[in-house]
Amino acid sequence: MKIFTAIKDIQTEILKQKSLGKSIGFVPTMGFLHEGHLTLINKARQANDIVVLSIFVNPLQFGPNEDFSTYPRDFERDSALAESEKVDFLFCPSVEEMYPNEPSIKVIVQERTDVLCGKSRPGHFDGVVTVVSKLFHIIMPTRAYFGKKDAQQVAVIEGLISDLNFPIELIAVDIVREKDGLAKSSRNVFLLPEERQQAVVLYKSLNAAKAAIDQGERNSSRLMGIIQEMITSESNGKIDYVEILTYPRLMPLEKLEGRIIIALAVKFTTVRLIDNFIVDID
Amino acid sequence: MKIFTAIKDIQTEILKQKSLGKSIGFVPTMGFLHEGHLTLINKARQANDIVVLSIFVNPLQFGPNEDFSTYPRDFERDSALAESEKVDFLFCPSVEEMYPNEPSIKVIVQERTDVLCGKSRPGHFDGVVTVVSKLFHIIMPTRAYFGKKDAQQVAVIEGLISDLNFPIELIAVDIVREKDGLAKSSRNVFLLPEERQQAVVLYKSLNAAKAAIDQGERNSSRLMGIIQEMITSESNGKIDYVEILTYPRLMPLEKLEGRIIIALAVKFTTVRLIDNFIVDID
Repeated sequence: MKIFTAIKDIQTEILKQKSLGKSIGFVPTMGFLHEGHLTLINKARQANDIVVLSIFVNPLQFGPNEDFSTYPRDFERDSALAESEKVDFLFCPSVEEMYPNEPSIKVIVQERTDVLCGKSRPGHFDGVVTVVSKLFHIIMPTRAYFGKKDAQQVAVIEGLISDLNFPIELIAVDIVREKDGLAKSSRNVFLLPEERQQAVVLYKSLNAAKAAIDQGERNSSRLMGIIQEMITSESNGKIDYVEILTYPRLMPLEKLEGRIIIALAVKFTTVRLIDNFIVDID
Repeated sequence: MKIFTAIKDIQTEILKQKSLGKSIGFVPTMGFLHEGHLTLINKARQANDIVVLSIFVNPLQFGPNEDFSTYPRDFERDSALAESEKVDFLFCPSVEEMYPNEPSIKVIVQERTDVLCGKSRPGHFDGVVTVVSKLFHIIMPTRAYFGKKDAQQVAVIEGLISDLNFPIELIAVDIVREKDGLAKSSRNVFLLPEERQQAVVLYKSLNAAKAAIDQGERNSSRLMGIIQEMITSESNGKIDYVEILTYPRLMPLEKLEGRIIIALAVKFTTVRLIDNFIVDID
């Protein structure tokens, strides 16, 4: 595994590989890798000649009161995991390398962002599409791998690729969960012990909603009610949002039909967790 | 020469060429080709395996009261010229092909745009960097060729490439002029006969300013005065702006030093012309 910190170096190496006809699979991450990331790497390994993993905690996508400085980092462990998963190139630039100046060019997204995480994180997705555009230009992947836990991010990046005609195939990979159902996340380490036990309620409430749908429930408000009540009664977490929208357009809906997303975010003492089910309604 | 109208078709063809290690020279235009464009094509032809010319009048970069609908178009003539200049691929998408929906993703530029053409054309450069980003993703050029007549556009695209890390070399090519000095432009056809004669004053006034600099003048206001007076007295054109700025940062300057741009825009009856000199001051 080759480790790159300079944009110019990896860009030169990738251009060389591409001129040899090699396909590039790219897994962009903020590091502190968990099994979810390793699944992405694995999928990339199966389908591409070269696998590139990036680790970059992107300040542009954190709000002023968010957890940029405390976001967990462990380069030694990440690097060892990447090597054992047969990553070819690890790209881990500094903030100064990625943003040597206040950028004069930004990519902005005007749809799908006034719902879910976009509502409580203004500017977050502009930061995401700007850094992802930069990374796409640096790595020039054939295929890019994203986890469905950030379902809104997947939808926004689907829009980015399509609206700006990136020659890239987006591969969205299923959520990987702990044994009790909690979605894997780098932020889970910040749960207090009792919160870690309670956090399973995110998954449990999504399952309850899904079960109600299977039994014929088609009323969106009642489904959200089921989830809200379960989270409130079985945890000390504070609900940030519970929403049911069309997927991937993320439009509000009256009657449940077609492909929908049930998504939620819950704040615990020092960490905010998200989870979602994407459900096809007959 | 192969002609493409579908994004998917040319993108597939380019990916094939790139995987064979071919270099791609790209000349993006709005068509109605003149010798300036042909010079760009020539430069691209000399340095690249494949030359791609695009013709697309981009609605996003025209304001509501600007000349999008009347911008001159002549596909037959352009196509014949492209063929005779040994263009390999001609890409001429429809507006619907480039913008099938109102785009949810935009690229915006926050520097170098409150001066020169940016002042009287709000949103113009956002439209430019958005379409250029799309074209760069579609054509994936090794080198992209732009004329220095749009010096601000060159500066903005320099920023686009650098801030978003496009793996592309920008080649800025000198202005090509008519025999009397008028900068070649697709819009020159709209000059009335007497305006065509008067229009040489743009070039003449830039030369007068340059002569004053050569004789030791270093006062920016006095230089602008020389230009304004000459344009006003020798034409019926209305001055949109005369500005002297650093280049390529396009910052205001007190004392003339280093690389500067003297740029101007003049409105005639139905057309607005621009011209500039880039001057290195000892």
